[in-house]
Amino acid sequence: MAAAKEMETGTVFTPQFGADGLITAIAQDADSGAILMVAYMNHEALAETMRTGRGVYYSRSRKKLWRKGEQSGSVQEVQEILTDCDQDCVVLKVKVGQGQCHVGYQSCFYRRLKAGTSDQLEFIAEPVYDPEEVYKK
Amino acid sequence: MAAAKEMETGTVFTPQFGADGLITAIAQDADSGAILMVAYMNHEALAETMRTGRGVYYSRSRKKLWRKGEQSGSVQEVQEILTDCDQDCVVLKVKVGQGQCHVGYQSCFYRRLKAGTSDQLEFIAEPVYDPEEVYKK
Repeated sequence: MAAAKEMETGTVFTPQFGADGLITAIAQDADSGAILMVAYMNHEALAETMRTGRGVYYSRSRKKLWRKGEQSGSVQEVQEILTDCDQDCVVLKVKVGQGQCHVGYQSCFYRRLKAGTSDQLEFIAEPVYDPEEVYKK
Repeated sequence: MAAAKEMETGTVFTPQFGADGLITAIAQDADSGAILMVAYMNHEALAETMRTGRGVYYSRSRKKLWRKGEQSGSVQEVQEILTDCDQDCVVLKVKVGQGQCHVGYQSCFYRRLKAGTSDQLEFIAEPVYDPEEVYKK
């Protein structure tokens, strides 16, 4: 258990990438605390994030590095990187401009389960930009 | 793309469990906005969470349902369940008592990467309870 204890209470950052080479990364608005998006990083994406101070992820669908904002211009300025007890997840506290979600909302979490239902969602946010304009440039 | 559009802009909750049968679940303090923990749910865990209003996860190490607080007493009262654009992640906004992390901290994210380093962590929180007392009961 020495290794587990060191992982949990030590001060060496040893991110635990999964069997797929990825670690879960959550972008949280540094000001509002809103959770903006959940994505994944490989070793290279995390290293580039740390080096550049901008949020870089690994796109599982496109199978390549995804520099957040490279298309939309909406980059994430990373203020802090937190990790959890078993170091298999990171939280990026980020400063962002408008519209972090490709659907047009500030956060990807723009819907919630409607109280008293098990399958009905309701919108809790308004779109902040028009993705058709931003992505069709 | 009709299915993707419906997933993103529709109002039917269709959680996308991965090939391993799990969906990522983030517990966020409903009051402070602090991210408390990141875990996983299988279909049964999510259904029980929705039914009981308490955070229930699937423990990948113990390979069974994990009713948060069943040992520690520190349950999560779920106020809201949010999902993201592609519905492969949920955020639980929860009301909690003291100490959500088994290491003794309020949140599992009690360390951050030290500015200017790539591998040094620093503590950003104080323990709020003694896990030896709570878990050895």
